[in-house]
Amino acid sequence: MTAMLTSLHRSRDAVTPAMRDAVQRLDPASRAQASYHLGWIDADGAPSAGGGGKAVRPALALLSAEAAGASTETGLPGAVAVELVHNFSLLHDDLMDGDVERRHRRTVWAIWGAPAAILAGDALLALAQEVLLESDSPHAAQAARLLASTTRELIRGQVQDLAFEQRGDVTLDECLDMAGGKTGSLLSASAAIGAVLAGAPEATVGALSVFGAQVGLAFQLVDDVLGIWGDPAVTGKPVFSDLRSRKKSLPVTYSVANCPELATWLAMPGEPDDAQLRRGAELVEAGGGREWALAEARRRMALAEDALSAVDIPSQPREELIALGNFVVDRDS
Amino acid sequence: MTAMLTSLHRSRDAVTPAMRDAVQRLDPASRAQASYHLGWIDADGAPSAGGGGKAVRPALALLSAEAAGASTETGLPGAVAVELVHNFSLLHDDLMDGDVERRHRRTVWAIWGAPAAILAGDALLALAQEVLLESDSPHAAQAARLLASTTRELIRGQVQDLAFEQRGDVTLDECLDMAGGKTGSLLSASAAIGAVLAGAPEATVGALSVFGAQVGLAFQLVDDVLGIWGDPAVTGKPVFSDLRSRKKSLPVTYSVANCPELATWLAMPGEPDDAQLRRGAELVEAGGGREWALAEARRRMALAEDALSAVDIPSQPREELIALGNFVVDRDS
Repeated sequence: MTAMLTSLHRSRDAVTPAMRDAVQRLDPASRAQASYHLGWIDADGAPSAGGGGKAVRPALALLSAEAAGASTETGLPGAVAVELVHNFSLLHDDLMDGDVERRHRRTVWAIWGAPAAILAGDALLALAQEVLLESDSPHAAQAARLLASTTRELIRGQVQDLAFEQRGDVTLDECLDMAGGKTGSLLSASAAIGAVLAGAPEATVGALSVFGAQVGLAFQLVDDVLGIWGDPAVTGKPVFSDLRSRKKSLPVTYSVANCPELATWLAMPGEPDDAQLRRGAELVEAGGGREWALAEARRRMALAEDALSAVDIPSQPREELIALGNFVVDRDS
Repeated sequence: MTAMLTSLHRSRDAVTPAMRDAVQRLDPASRAQASYHLGWIDADGAPSAGGGGKAVRPALALLSAEAAGASTETGLPGAVAVELVHNFSLLHDDLMDGDVERRHRRTVWAIWGAPAAILAGDALLALAQEVLLESDSPHAAQAARLLASTTRELIRGQVQDLAFEQRGDVTLDECLDMAGGKTGSLLSASAAIGAVLAGAPEATVGALSVFGAQVGLAFQLVDDVLGIWGDPAVTGKPVFSDLRSRKKSLPVTYSVANCPELATWLAMPGEPDDAQLRRGAELVEAGGGREWALAEARRRMALAEDALSAVDIPSQPREELIALGNFVVDRDS
């Protein structure tokens, strides 16, 4: 836990100034909206201390460079780039999902309207490539290519996620494939991009990539459990959040196959009341979805560790990568 | 005119198969929406002969490689990339502007909804970088960097364009700056990217870049004139199209300074009727906006030609570039 906290804090200290420099280049409107979204300022432009995410992706990118025997600085453009791509996707997803709050604050589209969220997101995506391609690494183009194909995967995942809302017959395999696109692909790229910038051998890049993909799936499995059973005071989301929206999350999809009553529950018209929400959560639990998701997250985390042990990585970044993965699985928000 | 038609047709023949290959990589939903938007299929998936734009940008990119003494093929990844970025911006702009038709066909968001247009646009932007970075040119990273900074400029222009809708005091300089971002930047990058991929000297890239930026402004000036006085049967837009939306286009902004009555006309509440639209067009003409815009387009086109004459460019691509620029200025749709 301590190693993990260290790497997250260290990463935040290194990455935030570089993120600010990058965002500074945007047109004034996109800059203000991105700075608000990133938790640096309030909606009226006053400096803000709060907000920002866990910054797991940039931490992975910096450790990825160290895993390849390079300096933290080598991974920095990659760390900024993956965090920019992540925030591009949040800005667009919040709009598409109609979410008016994120991390206890109003979303960009809810304050400034849909065009602002579209353009600020577009600007962050373009900026991610720009920052990466300006890096003085001779492998910047390879890293940029990884980022572009990853973005395509990310979009594929979101397309599937939206399509699943209209379908009652989503299989667990489809749901895992969607999570692999929507969450796994960018965590995989984050864990690999520092090594790519460092010019690491293909085996090292491949192992880090598998590590990140498995951590990403573990992350999503835990996220989906928290989306139902998370403590609203900690997660910042309403109780039974994902059940209210009847989200076909991983535990729900698992349980539907074992519990026909849950399929009926999901197809129920109208907004579920509190008693119905409790009943829904019981049905997911009865179908084994909660237990499966947590066990599957641990299994994915073990596969992530296995991937790292196949290659030669210095012990400190290896331990920090594993601590970061465990943090993702053990978190409560 | 013949040289221009040759270069546009030649470009379409070379670029379309590469565009199709690129779009083929997208997830099935984004692929269908992009293919529809590009005029290759109908909304129900049946092959379509029509649609597609003038493809001026890819033609510039191919000529740009030839201007640097390289083969057309050298410019091809650049041609595909600029056309993908252009179409990314159209998909998002149609949504933001609430436009339900483009080139006599329903827009993607009007058929499939806002999330589809956002995601298909995002996917084309990511794909543009991917195609470029996969090119075997040793200068692909430099071209990708040009494309990323150009995308940022393009977004800045659209941000300004949307902000201008809320303002009554937009100056001509601001309007030209906006057009430089929204139209000039991508035409500039299109005219330069082939030379960048060919590893041309900085002076050649710079001259082509200025050429494209000036052609871009000329293009926008003519576009704005057609937006008011264009023949609906040819442009596919309603008569007085830009006056209906009270767009602060370049000729309108020019005339407002000379014709206070036009400012009053623009501030008039409600939807203008046919007599009011005719009156609005007369006021823009009385303020000198039409005459100025057409003269300014010719002046920009002359500056574009001057830029090319400062460097050593083979005569055929030089003549085709100039013919393409003149086509842009002389077109009626």
